[in-house]
Amino acid sequence: MSDFRADAAAASEWVARYLEGVRELPVLSRVEPGQIKAALPDAPPDRPEPFAAVLRDLDEILLPGITHWNHPRFFAYFSISGSEPGILAELLTAALNVNAMLWRTSPAATELEEVAVDWLRQLVGLPAGLHGHIEDTASTSTLAALAAARHLRPGGAVLCSEHAHSSVDKAARLLELPLVKIPADSEFRMWPDALAGALAEHEAAAVVATVGTTSSTSVDPVAELAPLCAEAGAWLHVDAAYAGPAMVCEENRWAFAGVEEADSLVVNPHKWLFTPIDCSVLYTSRPDVLRDAFSILPEYLRTSDEDVTNLMDYGPALGRRFRSLKLWAVIRCHGREGLQALIREHMRLARLFASWVEEAPAWEVVAPVPFSVVCFRLEGSDEENAALLERVNATGEAYLSHTVLDGRYVLRLAVGNHRTTEDDVRRAWELLQEA
Amino acid sequence: MSDFRADAAAASEWVARYLEGVRELPVLSRVEPGQIKAALPDAPPDRPEPFAAVLRDLDEILLPGITHWNHPRFFAYFSISGSEPGILAELLTAALNVNAMLWRTSPAATELEEVAVDWLRQLVGLPAGLHGHIEDTASTSTLAALAAARHLRPGGAVLCSEHAHSSVDKAARLLELPLVKIPADSEFRMWPDALAGALAEHEAAAVVATVGTTSSTSVDPVAELAPLCAEAGAWLHVDAAYAGPAMVCEENRWAFAGVEEADSLVVNPHKWLFTPIDCSVLYTSRPDVLRDAFSILPEYLRTSDEDVTNLMDYGPALGRRFRSLKLWAVIRCHGREGLQALIREHMRLARLFASWVEEAPAWEVVAPVPFSVVCFRLEGSDEENAALLERVNATGEAYLSHTVLDGRYVLRLAVGNHRTTEDDVRRAWELLQEA
Repeated sequence: MSDFRADAAAASEWVARYLEGVRELPVLSRVEPGQIKAALPDAPPDRPEPFAAVLRDLDEILLPGITHWNHPRFFAYFSISGSEPGILAELLTAALNVNAMLWRTSPAATELEEVAVDWLRQLVGLPAGLHGHIEDTASTSTLAALAAARHLRPGGAVLCSEHAHSSVDKAARLLELPLVKIPADSEFRMWPDALAGALAEHEAAAVVATVGTTSSTSVDPVAELAPLCAEAGAWLHVDAAYAGPAMVCEENRWAFAGVEEADSLVVNPHKWLFTPIDCSVLYTSRPDVLRDAFSILPEYLRTSDEDVTNLMDYGPALGRRFRSLKLWAVIRCHGREGLQALIREHMRLARLFASWVEEAPAWEVVAPVPFSVVCFRLEGSDEENAALLERVNATGEAYLSHTVLDGRYVLRLAVGNHRTTEDDVRRAWELLQEA
Repeated sequence: MSDFRADAAAASEWVARYLEGVRELPVLSRVEPGQIKAALPDAPPDRPEPFAAVLRDLDEILLPGITHWNHPRFFAYFSISGSEPGILAELLTAALNVNAMLWRTSPAATELEEVAVDWLRQLVGLPAGLHGHIEDTASTSTLAALAAARHLRPGGAVLCSEHAHSSVDKAARLLELPLVKIPADSEFRMWPDALAGALAEHEAAAVVATVGTTSSTSVDPVAELAPLCAEAGAWLHVDAAYAGPAMVCEENRWAFAGVEEADSLVVNPHKWLFTPIDCSVLYTSRPDVLRDAFSILPEYLRTSDEDVTNLMDYGPALGRRFRSLKLWAVIRCHGREGLQALIREHMRLARLFASWVEEAPAWEVVAPVPFSVVCFRLEGSDEENAALLERVNATGEAYLSHTVLDGRYVLRLAVGNHRTTEDDVRRAWELLQEA
């Protein structure tokens, strides 16, 4: 263990320096395809190497090839952060190395998962009594929800807005369910009349409503959609992977109006709740259906335990990491107020950035800003906007991504890292203007 | 960062002491259902708590509810271990917090994944040119392989031995493919004549052969099955999740005869390659089919990069952790020879245990021992054997599990933890005799 203590101290120091210095690194990696691979040995070593060699090569070979998601000026996709308590909890999880597949194979892992997802449920204002469990990503959570929906209505269609996440397409393809895209209104929200029409036309297994779409963070009007789903007997799945954590602040709960009628809902703490990836929480009011869709009990997994929850029964994978430990650590070490403060600051920064764009000649905000993402563009062609984005990203000082809205190429600035300050957002705006 | 350094030192010390002392803890948790949950607060805290409070409650509340998978006398299911380099790599992964979904979103994560899985390919003697990527668990790897098979032959059946893992059942159910179980011979290996018959009867999308089945670690005769699959145009998927790592030792490669003909093959470093869960490597000779089955490119994920590998295209999830870092660290810090030495020792211990059982009156080894798992039973009824198992597990000194073979309840002792010694295995045998 003397080696382990020394190696752990070196790894911890590496992490401390990384987090201290990440702001100085280029956000978007500048390597060429194949460059990292070419710098690594083709073959594994025959003899053991010290862990110090891993840390050395991490610095010298890998670091230039890292795009720094934990950088305060990472504004692309959904900006995320692995906060310190979550990082250390992952160390503990790896040391314990338990598999939370059955209650018996680690009672604390199963029960802490139940407690942590219930804490999160309370934080975001969801009704009591929901069953929750943790999957790796929202892709898997949505797949599990739609598999449950298919179990009730085999062959039924999946209906979602044209702005729903690609994971809905992916899940429908895997489940071989027809996918029907519903038109959105001028603010990119699913249009209830269009849904009503589609429900009349198609036998629907499920409707996926999104609270915080990926392109523009628009909010489908769940309160208007839910009665239509109920009437049609379709499973209502709410994708709140990104915006769910914002409901920690009560002033954002308008966006959750109607979600108490949902059959399932996904929130990703690894998106905007400062939890290292992966951690996606799937809630359902109908756990029996999920269990019916997934539970298989071979002899070698049978136990004598009665009346226990075996979380392997609620999703596609058997093996399950002890992910609740990091969620629990993050919630405890931030507290409700700490989480609220971060989310409010991120929303303030996004609105501030949007106000700068609005005031600038030739610039335009192209979608409402309900949370922490701003969609905007410069007057000119799509190509010009794309070239502008490449130039900004090439500086290494900030990383933004893009989408297409109303057929136009649009830039996106997403705030979500717990280290991001007003200066970081201002620097991004300067870079955009300079480019 | 001063707080982080102190917290990291405390967490590291916690891990060092845990790994030093885990041998003294009861392997199987003794808590009652609900006991852990009852000891935790119902509601999340409003104010931030120090990380020290997390460590305190980990000791005082959670630890009694942990079943210690990293204990040297954990002999249940497949015994695994999260070795020290893998544990520390998970700390680094959480700090970097990158998403390896696209090449651009972390070139080093994509390219290190390509290198690490190629190193593993060389270590286990698979042919050059295979495409490999990392999934969370073999459940997902097998799901991805069978989705590719379905893509080529929609609606075709999945054929596997009656001893195949339940994840094959789960994947077939999710993919809505008919599942046909093929009888096994007296040593629990898929019977080629029976497969030939089934292939004549069913339009097969895929055949799943297992190298190291879960109940008895039997090896399906892949070299005999492969030509039948080729003739029938069925995708051959090899589940070597457990036994694959044993191929690091050339003397075990008989078990891989014929796998060069497979369309896909899964090996789990988190099972018997000392890598913390989760890490399952899926190899395929037909990556284009996998990509055709899974690739969806929405605008917001489109990049200007050409000729790069975007690993999100090869499996069900979009978000992907930087799992290759731990696999790379484990391979480097053990080296080929270190891995060979551990695997050879585990196999020696299993054979030694089997020899004790064979020599003891009233005890019986009920299956061949090709790797590190021994299936055995005491003369008497199933109920007596089950009661014996419960008594041994209740001592807290060792944890074994069971299965059913030829209709009889059978005990299983699985060796796989890098701390397990001959004394540990001997103690398990003493406990079984005392019980």
